[in-house]
Amino acid sequence: MQSLWLENQVLTFREDLPIPVPGKDQALIRLLLAGVCSTDLELVRGYYPFTGIPGHEFVGEVESSPDDSTWIGKRVVGEINIACTKCHTCLLGLPGHCENRKTLGIHDWDGVFAEYLVLPLSNLHVVPESVSTEMAVFTEPLAAAYEILEQTTILPSDRVLIIGAGRLGILAAMVIRQTGCQLGVVVRHPKQTMLVEDLKIHTISEINIGSKKFDLVVEATGSIDGFRLATKCVRPRGRILLKSTYKGSADVDFSRIVVDEITIIGSRCGPFDPALQLLGDGKVDPRPLIDAIYPISRGINAFEQASNPGVLKILLRPDKS
Amino acid sequence: MQSLWLENQVLTFREDLPIPVPGKDQALIRLLLAGVCSTDLELVRGYYPFTGIPGHEFVGEVESSPDDSTWIGKRVVGEINIACTKCHTCLLGLPGHCENRKTLGIHDWDGVFAEYLVLPLSNLHVVPESVSTEMAVFTEPLAAAYEILEQTTILPSDRVLIIGAGRLGILAAMVIRQTGCQLGVVVRHPKQTMLVEDLKIHTISEINIGSKKFDLVVEATGSIDGFRLATKCVRPRGRILLKSTYKGSADVDFSRIVVDEITIIGSRCGPFDPALQLLGDGKVDPRPLIDAIYPISRGINAFEQASNPGVLKILLRPDKS
Repeated sequence: MQSLWLENQVLTFREDLPIPVPGKDQALIRLLLAGVCSTDLELVRGYYPFTGIPGHEFVGEVESSPDDSTWIGKRVVGEINIACTKCHTCLLGLPGHCENRKTLGIHDWDGVFAEYLVLPLSNLHVVPESVSTEMAVFTEPLAAAYEILEQTTILPSDRVLIIGAGRLGILAAMVIRQTGCQLGVVVRHPKQTMLVEDLKIHTISEINIGSKKFDLVVEATGSIDGFRLATKCVRPRGRILLKSTYKGSADVDFSRIVVDEITIIGSRCGPFDPALQLLGDGKVDPRPLIDAIYPISRGINAFEQASNPGVLKILLRPDKS
Repeated sequence: MQSLWLENQVLTFREDLPIPVPGKDQALIRLLLAGVCSTDLELVRGYYPFTGIPGHEFVGEVESSPDDSTWIGKRVVGEINIACTKCHTCLLGLPGHCENRKTLGIHDWDGVFAEYLVLPLSNLHVVPESVSTEMAVFTEPLAAAYEILEQTTILPSDRVLIIGAGRLGILAAMVIRQTGCQLGVVVRHPKQTMLVEDLKIHTISEINIGSKKFDLVVEATGSIDGFRLATKCVRPRGRILLKSTYKGSADVDFSRIVVDEITIIGSRCGPFDPALQLLGDGKVDPRPLIDAIYPISRGINAFEQASNPGVLKILLRPDKS
């Protein structure tokens, strides 16, 4: 089958890999559409030593499912953590943090930049008919944005700032806007400013932020500059939510964190159901974020474009579709 | 009156300062006993450019109170933040974080290492008769330990680790033990080991901690090594509470924080009432932490001893007492 392959930080296009075979309680899924995420770019840069097919954002159709034929033909999205269901963390009800987990296209499990992929049935969610495939491909990052509401309460009276209007920043803005809070987004690129303003969300330039004002700051740049700005503008007893994968270590002024009793919350994957519901209700439309759709055979070019500053969402589709 | 004086990081003993005059709704308090805290030592090391009488942990007797004579003769302890009561943070119900606050012996308000001090009446708490002065002098740091329970919920089933068995670490252990959780304390010095074991609290050596095990880790060393150990042994979705003033900045691996969705909580001053209640009920006795009591005239020596590794609580009393 057609696929991308990552090995020793080199991404290649291959046609020699066999169609994978689903195991017990798993499904073989034919890819309809996949999304390139910052984590994919970081993998290529060596953030984590993954060898295999990368990619974890997808919509597909269940091709076969040996143990449960009711899934066949269903259009699905899938959670990316494959849990052991037996370890202490799984038994705490946190399968996404399973001690022995494999992660789709990131750790020990082939990903979605291929014609076919395999996932456990328990990871799958059926996409409602009202949600187009181009919208549904945003389910995973939109779920990651919903993780913010899973981890902290946002009151309608809260002043919330999102730093960064990249892929995840804009999806976070779409989700947080549902709470009715006073929301602002720090934007750098003109195109992103337009997109955020189209959502009727207030944009703020860095110099006008002021200090110690915000109840909650969502850091969505993944840069230490973004984090420094967050510590500057969060109010005493406020919260900083880190909604981006950081590479390496960073120099942090802990004195401000302790004296002003600031809470810092790391945030990763989130719940799929509210994301699908938001898309199904037509409350948000992430499609304006799509910059380009590439066939898998041109996946290398897709990664190149996705790496450019200001580029939002790059999608991949099978060549034959 | 007799007092210590800090100026340009030099601590001196003085006898030429006048007895302060209380303003509206304030009290003049005669010192009975004061405690030296790590923050006092950091002030001398230049952590913050304070000029004045240092010290913020005290027990005293109200000598005069122009606007409310019912306070006169009362034995009191006092909260250290003097709030404006008008700013946004005060109106949020967080006077301890007042944007215009002065802080007893730390910022713009003379402290307690003197025969007399002044505080607003609204900062004072009467010490119950059942609590000796030597116990009551621990109210402020014990309140700081109670701030942990103000900021995060500890379940009886939680596995909690305190890193560091200094002054604050042991008081934190006394408070956290009240929740019935599974508590361990990382101890380095033999004397501290003995004190913690006397409290019937489990001690753990660093090499036996294991990784990703604890629901909550309280970092009470104020060192970057302590923080690194905390990030290592906290479980996914667990909490690290920073219960110590950090000096400067530190190199932090954010990747672990984000991927394992760890929450970091800065923590400073806490509520006095539960601390006085705990002391009044005789549930804890912090007096074994006292290493020495110095007269104010020997305050320089007191600071020297307090700076030595493994030393717990050094107290100061007026020479005439």
